[in-house]
Amino acid sequence: MRISSTLLQRSKQLIDKYALYVPKTGSFPKGFEVGYTASGVKKNGSLDLGVILNTNKSRPSTAAAVFTTNKFKAAPVLTSKKVLETARGKNINAIVVNSGCANSVTGDLGMKDAQVMIDLVNDKIGQKNSTLVMSTGVIGQRLQMDKISTGINKIFGEEKFGSDFNSWLNVAKSICTTDTFPKLVTSRFKLPSGTEYTLTGMAKGAGMICPNMATLLGFIVTDLPIESKALQKMLTFATTRSFNCISVDGDMSTNDTICMLANGAIDTKEINEDSKDFEQVKLQVTEFAQRLAQLVVRDGEGSTKFVTVNVKNALHFEDAKIIAESISNSMLVKTALYGQDANWGRILCAIGYAKLNDLKSLDVNKINVSFIATDNSEPRELKLVANGVPQLEIDETRASEILALNDLEVSVDLGTGDQAAQFWTCDLSHEYVTINGDYRS
Amino acid sequence: MRISSTLLQRSKQLIDKYALYVPKTGSFPKGFEVGYTASGVKKNGSLDLGVILNTNKSRPSTAAAVFTTNKFKAAPVLTSKKVLETARGKNINAIVVNSGCANSVTGDLGMKDAQVMIDLVNDKIGQKNSTLVMSTGVIGQRLQMDKISTGINKIFGEEKFGSDFNSWLNVAKSICTTDTFPKLVTSRFKLPSGTEYTLTGMAKGAGMICPNMATLLGFIVTDLPIESKALQKMLTFATTRSFNCISVDGDMSTNDTICMLANGAIDTKEINEDSKDFEQVKLQVTEFAQRLAQLVVRDGEGSTKFVTVNVKNALHFEDAKIIAESISNSMLVKTALYGQDANWGRILCAIGYAKLNDLKSLDVNKINVSFIATDNSEPRELKLVANGVPQLEIDETRASEILALNDLEVSVDLGTGDQAAQFWTCDLSHEYVTINGDYRS
Repeated sequence: MRISSTLLQRSKQLIDKYALYVPKTGSFPKGFEVGYTASGVKKNGSLDLGVILNTNKSRPSTAAAVFTTNKFKAAPVLTSKKVLETARGKNINAIVVNSGCANSVTGDLGMKDAQVMIDLVNDKIGQKNSTLVMSTGVIGQRLQMDKISTGINKIFGEEKFGSDFNSWLNVAKSICTTDTFPKLVTSRFKLPSGTEYTLTGMAKGAGMICPNMATLLGFIVTDLPIESKALQKMLTFATTRSFNCISVDGDMSTNDTICMLANGAIDTKEINEDSKDFEQVKLQVTEFAQRLAQLVVRDGEGSTKFVTVNVKNALHFEDAKIIAESISNSMLVKTALYGQDANWGRILCAIGYAKLNDLKSLDVNKINVSFIATDNSEPRELKLVANGVPQLEIDETRASEILALNDLEVSVDLGTGDQAAQFWTCDLSHEYVTINGDYRS
Repeated sequence: MRISSTLLQRSKQLIDKYALYVPKTGSFPKGFEVGYTASGVKKNGSLDLGVILNTNKSRPSTAAAVFTTNKFKAAPVLTSKKVLETARGKNINAIVVNSGCANSVTGDLGMKDAQVMIDLVNDKIGQKNSTLVMSTGVIGQRLQMDKISTGINKIFGEEKFGSDFNSWLNVAKSICTTDTFPKLVTSRFKLPSGTEYTLTGMAKGAGMICPNMATLLGFIVTDLPIESKALQKMLTFATTRSFNCISVDGDMSTNDTICMLANGAIDTKEINEDSKDFEQVKLQVTEFAQRLAQLVVRDGEGSTKFVTVNVKNALHFEDAKIIAESISNSMLVKTALYGQDANWGRILCAIGYAKLNDLKSLDVNKINVSFIATDNSEPRELKLVANGVPQLEIDETRASEILALNDLEVSVDLGTGDQAAQFWTCDLSHEYVTINGDYRS
């Protein structure tokens, strides 16, 4: 079953993640412009400051966000949360983001710095309480506000805003830290009425590599008009099934933030919770958020595999998710995946210690566990456990083939209900230990 | 801050764990005899079968146990649980243990095999429902009952039982799997009345390396007479503060069992919950169990460090424990320890995402975090966070010295109450990934 380290190395080198996952073109939502610069906060001179701006004036924009639940919340998280609450999710027209410094665990001074970033952008756009701020990078260090201030001046001055592909890609680059590729996704959707709209998203993160790299940021913007409460409901639903369903190392940072702006630049009736299109848009946003979140796992520190953990036929969604998370976070499952070992025992074990809300969710005699190939090769499914009974004579050749894939699926059929949850995880490699054992040095 | 890999290698080689942690002599509780053999279940011919026997007839023995809460419980766990319940914790006079095969996820046949092991030993001692069984090793494989049966005959036949140091050490060896040294602890205690008694314990485990190596087993025997309910209460209390407070990789196996026998061979009044000595014996058993549990962490797979996580001045014991566990299980904290990096950010982060029962347990403005040297060098304490404020000018030379130690302490003072909890953990190394990436192969 063991694959030689040479082969592992080779299969790793075969993936040019930038070529595979970074788009080369795209169209973007109406009424948004973006700006970016290298402020100097990042010592190597890379892009490290970005602004997303809503320029549509036809109707008020709406905003929603999901923030980290870590009890140590960074200054930009606390500050943006307050802005959003005061604005009641309306008239947020700018997001300013910097990388290189997370402005986290920086006390009162850090809170002031976050507010100054907001005030600088509010001044530029001539509006009050209309800007959200986000920061990512090293924690426990103060922002170099002179550089940030000069950078914001530059973006609103000589650097100019743009709405073309390169501008969006550069903003996606400006929020990166240990990411090996920028994460930009854009997609057009159609509603039954024929109305077309666009979702564009960016994310950063290459591990819940908290909080030194202070961590997961995600932005989604759309030109569809969505009422603010409906928008928050959609984003919360989508985040629960996307950004909250990924595991690199199971650590949640002080800065995690996912936010969404809807500017209503498309001339159609505003969608609220009672609209007939509400459910469809919610699902489209969810699927879109999943694509974005999956890119974070694909860039998981040191990872060689992208693994979908699919828990189905569960009594409750929440318990399906708890089981998917338990498998996805298990160090033993992750090392087995790295070692390309069809170790069903570790998967069962992680299911067995998951802390379920309802014990009836799991019946040890009904469970089915399989590896699923994602490359159209046959047989697609390799059964490891059938109705609670381990398959002692597994086709080891086929197991090797599936486990050698860069993408694969672990399928768990609980057989206790009709609910399902997915998680996306990566393997735990020597490289992960090297990256995280040496980072701060 | 980074220590060269050569230095890491060297500091690792300096620890001869066998010489440091395996006793060379010891005295044992009255009325117990032990037997052992190499049954052939382990292919390499190592010891793999052991029996602990109570021979004291002066009064009935008592027994207690704490079993894994994993929903996939191995056959010996389910079978022993039933024996203990039927016996109501009384008249258990033998424990039979094998290594090399965990008899886990083996269905009805596995249940029968576990019962046969019990029946064989019951027959030998001429008693009914008096034997507990435990197994550890590979899961999903059936026990080779012919070898087990021959082995039990040998132990009760030509191999003979003994109560000397070598017999005890050999039983400790017979329960090992990936352990690099046998874990045997024996100690004499004195009660205020002048009565002396002995605790002897054995454990196996080198990681919660579940369930392939199927995992943590611990046995404690004493010659003190302890009423069965009081014994269960003591063992549960002790396990909560010892075997349940260790982390190698956070995975809990299908076979985890800690059990305790008290044979009352010492001529003194039986201790029950109302006895004046109850609290003292409980604390002595707890401290003893901690010594035994710590040996499991010291043998943690691939580990180079033994780290005590000390959470004090907490509002509740349970929340102190949840925080200690969160720090101890964090992959980022573990890799930072391996990299000898004074990364307080990762420790704060793990504290911040711990799922507390009472949010008032954590006040982000009151928290103190330090590294503590354990080698009597000064200054003993290196403050990383004081009253919620990170110490930005840490003495990096001193940090390097403390982090280069094989033993160190992470101290977290929550400042919200007067409760405390401890966890013992180890670092996450390249070696761990190698061991667990390649195991089943």
